[in-house]
Amino acid sequence: MSTRAMNLIHNDQLFPADPVMRGIARRLHAEVRGLPIISPHGHTQAAWFADNQPFPDPAKLFVQPDHYIFRMLYSQGIALEDLEIGVGELKDPRRVWRIFAENYYLFRGTPTRMWLDYAFQELFGLEERLSGATADLYFDVISERLRTPEFRPRALYDRFHIEVLATTDSPLDSLADHQAIRDSGWKARIIPAFRPDSVVDPDFAGFEKNVAKLGQIAGEDTGSWQGYIRALEKTRARFKALGCTATDHGHPTALTVDLPAADAARVFETVLSGRAAERQKELFRAQMLTEMARMSVEDGLVMQLHPGAYRNHNRKMYERYGRDVGADIPVATDYVHALHPLLARFGNEKNFTLILFTLDETTYTRELAPLAGH
Amino acid sequence: MSTRAMNLIHNDQLFPADPVMRGIARRLHAEVRGLPIISPHGHTQAAWFADNQPFPDPAKLFVQPDHYIFRMLYSQGIALEDLEIGVGELKDPRRVWRIFAENYYLFRGTPTRMWLDYAFQELFGLEERLSGATADLYFDVISERLRTPEFRPRALYDRFHIEVLATTDSPLDSLADHQAIRDSGWKARIIPAFRPDSVVDPDFAGFEKNVAKLGQIAGEDTGSWQGYIRALEKTRARFKALGCTATDHGHPTALTVDLPAADAARVFETVLSGRAAERQKELFRAQMLTEMARMSVEDGLVMQLHPGAYRNHNRKMYERYGRDVGADIPVATDYVHALHPLLARFGNEKNFTLILFTLDETTYTRELAPLAGH
Amino acid sequence: MSTRAMNLIHNDQLFPADPVMRGIARRLHAEVRGLPIISPHGHTQAAWFADNQPFPDPAKLFVQPDHYIFRMLYSQGIALEDLEIGVGELKDPRRVWRIFAENYYLFRGTPTRMWLDYAFQELFGLEERLSGATADLYFDVISERLRTPEFRPRALYDRFHIEVLATTDSPLDSLADHQAIRDSGWKARIIPAFRPDSVVDPDFAGFEKNVAKLGQIAGEDTGSWQGYIRALEKTRARFKALGCTATDHGHPTALTVDLPAADAARVFETVLSGRAAERQKELFRAQMLTEMARMSVEDGLVMQLHPGAYRNHNRKMYERYGRDVGADIPVATDYVHALHPLLARFGNEKNFTLILFTLDETTYTRELAPLAGH
Repeated sequence: MSTRAMNLIHNDQLFPADPVMRGIARRLHAEVRGLPIISPHGHTQAAWFADNQPFPDPAKLFVQPDHYIFRMLYSQGIALEDLEIGVGELKDPRRVWRIFAENYYLFRGTPTRMWLDYAFQELFGLEERLSGATADLYFDVISERLRTPEFRPRALYDRFHIEVLATTDSPLDSLADHQAIRDSGWKARIIPAFRPDSVVDPDFAGFEKNVAKLGQIAGEDTGSWQGYIRALEKTRARFKALGCTATDHGHPTALTVDLPAADAARVFETVLSGRAAERQKELFRAQMLTEMARMSVEDGLVMQLHPGAYRNHNRKMYERYGRDVGADIPVATDYVHALHPLLARFGNEKNFTLILFTLDETTYTRELAPLAGH
Repeated sequence: MSTRAMNLIHNDQLFPADPVMRGIARRLHAEVRGLPIISPHGHTQAAWFADNQPFPDPAKLFVQPDHYIFRMLYSQGIALEDLEIGVGELKDPRRVWRIFAENYYLFRGTPTRMWLDYAFQELFGLEERLSGATADLYFDVISERLRTPEFRPRALYDRFHIEVLATTDSPLDSLADHQAIRDSGWKARIIPAFRPDSVVDPDFAGFEKNVAKLGQIAGEDTGSWQGYIRALEKTRARFKALGCTATDHGHPTALTVDLPAADAARVFETVLSGRAAERQKELFRAQMLTEMARMSVEDGLVMQLHPGAYRNHNRKMYERYGRDVGADIPVATDYVHALHPLLARFGNEKNFTLILFTLDETTYTRELAPLAGH
Repeated sequence: MSTRAMNLIHNDQLFPADPVMRGIARRLHAEVRGLPIISPHGHTQAAWFADNQPFPDPAKLFVQPDHYIFRMLYSQGIALEDLEIGVGELKDPRRVWRIFAENYYLFRGTPTRMWLDYAFQELFGLEERLSGATADLYFDVISERLRTPEFRPRALYDRFHIEVLATTDSPLDSLADHQAIRDSGWKARIIPAFRPDSVVDPDFAGFEKNVAKLGQIAGEDTGSWQGYIRALEKTRARFKALGCTATDHGHPTALTVDLPAADAARVFETVLSGRAAERQKELFRAQMLTEMARMSVEDGLVMQLHPGAYRNHNRKMYERYGRDVGADIPVATDYVHALHPLLARFGNEKNFTLILFTLDETTYTRELAPLAGH
């Protein structure tokens, strides 16, 4: 990283305002800023690195996939249609970019602007703030750079000094891209993470079909509880063979239960029938966390849990654009009662590591730190 | 405001202790301190400005209506009878004032003392702290000033550089005072806010009678759901005609529902019969928030919601002194599940603005900021 | 306390990093650091002061009883058996101490290390950090000092400048040690606190037997509700006679109810039968808080309530080592609804003081401060 005078970002960005504290922050930051990146949750796609094609234009790269950007614009009255959200091929990326640029002032003080300004300056060498006046300059400069070899995904992987990068993958994914990266001989450690939401959450769109497809891929009859469990175990093994070290679970709550096998099988049949009540769906998700913990004890995959988001809160946006468009809203989350059944069963196992994420800041000192003593 | 040496308040009051931060705070404060006041929630009465009569004596003005003051004294063993709380005409205001003055030390470090000291110094020119020793001095100085023309309500409105002041008014209020202000030709913008708690909350004292009176005023039969809704719509229009720009709703929780009209009508009949269970009263309040949102979409009034207080928690005080005597205690409050029905219906309407207040600080980052993207 | 250069602890430990704030902190601390200790919740045992015997070896004194220490070690994979937790007489205290010393680095940044380093330096004169290399030095120095007269419990009481020290005692305790301290003529104020969990919490191990024993000690038939209540009243009087000024209640939640006497008696019979459901046990605890409040109004004992811990969360540790081994995890706690029945009955009594503790930091401003106005 350069040490020249900066225009878009301040060298002391996010450091304390107090000079003594700031001095300490600078010293600590200097010690770690050169370290390699180990990213267990990379929000990237293996296909980028398998294909190593150039990234698309600025609008497709920065605006379309980033719900922090388009929700802010939407909340100020800009139509998502004008931003071409949800569209495969952008008809007029420069127009989308201009709308974004004209409204960039809205992001003042947000993390979104901090990291965008950082990228604009450090990666693309831009020095004047994005605005209506600089929209075309930005569009042209970024477009041009993206076509150079230095901005291909693999080149960026090296430039960013990444040591490990975990993608997040569905059990229904063939992992062909991961295989292709391996086969290419490129020396990089890009590994999958096992994210089974689509086949363990009855509220996930297409749940029943997903479970059937899981069975086909794994060569098991997922119409039965035993076959379903075996299919999951085999899929985890398939992920592990390609370097996977962890699973990742997005649940509405952290609820777990530890049902007798016969009861678990019955709940599975109910949710698979598509006639389960809300309560039974939650019970199934709760049982599946305990099943996943048991598999982790057996296969050694670290278990990651992301509870506490009310998914797809904006019903109209969900109906029009589907999931993951930024309408997941955090709610107050209990871990202590919720995780008791799982921890009572596996919490003292030496071969079990559970990483808890939270969107509810009040839980850090009250629940998460004390629970860490298990 | 003066810049002379201050005795009761510090020029840097509430600013950071750190000198660098303090310098920034001073600079920011200097930029805004001269701006006019736009008060959407003024805790004032239109009658003050309609009549423009002098404010009463110090005890009646500062002690009797301020539950932050008398609850503190009460918690330390002082009888509310001695403070003449709930009394129309004070028998011995100087005695009440002396009790307050002798116990003023109890308010050290509280916001109450900060703003009282500010008023004592800046408005009344007092320079020695209020105490038993200065009680009579304060009483005499304040009493004398309150009789001068400069301390009449309209003069203070001008002095405080107010641009807009919204009072909070019941749908049962004739708004005659607001009309009188308009008719007087005085150039000030004092507007009503529509606060319908007394006619939408079945737990509000006199609810059934209030609903009947609403019907009389609006010329509608509020014995039926349709008539009740029409009466509310007409009352909102009456408020709007006098400048009202917003509604204001005090609810125990933020719960909303979006019932079919026939179900809503049934719940209305039940609560009006006085035989509703707790659950049905809450359901009615929940439905009324959605009705109010619908009306806001139609008439453009901004909707303000204050949920999360357990009202009248001190039962003995409530039985003796009624509501609003400071026994409203904040509780943990959910917005995400609670508001989903209302937002699913109206959250994407361009003509709808919902302002959420909170007494639960944990909700700012967890729930309110993410919800703002609607 | 000495003012010489310190090696283990920093003179400004826990003070703000900012120099201005730090100066204020130093000044405030200097004003209070010499004040005597008044400890209403001392976590000590009267037997120490009655017998005045030397404290045992370092491992028995510091490691075995401190769940903050052994849970940290356990969480990093060290077996509790190796630390001789739960053992009466340690077989190899030096070995236990060495394991602790080798892993002392784990406590960096924890309150545990702060107070241990403080004790090591200030009481035992140690100047090099505890580690594998200094384990034996520490063991020898501490062992030697503990055998000197200056380290006997009564000498430490004087040295620490204690003015009052309250132990925490079961209603089943004879308080013989408290009596012995009094009889010894030693001038110190060590008083019991009344902690009735073992006889009011149906989930407490041995509850039914404990209630029977309470009856024997108090000379009442605790098989009946009336006898049980009388036994508690007489036991409180017995505690009060030995200086007790307060009660102390550890409950899973702050729930209170105010049942008619006949209903309370029925719930008592159910829980005593050992066949109560979870809901009834919670109802009983809730009623007992209100009973305790009533007794406090009558006998003047200050009431202390510690709600909000999920006790014995680690089931395997509980089954093997029993309660109080550090697996009590805080949960989100409601005080406002929960305490309403108790406060509606006794909250306005002048002779009633209720001290609320919390493990849920979010409740300080939201619930506890506003409730204090009762």
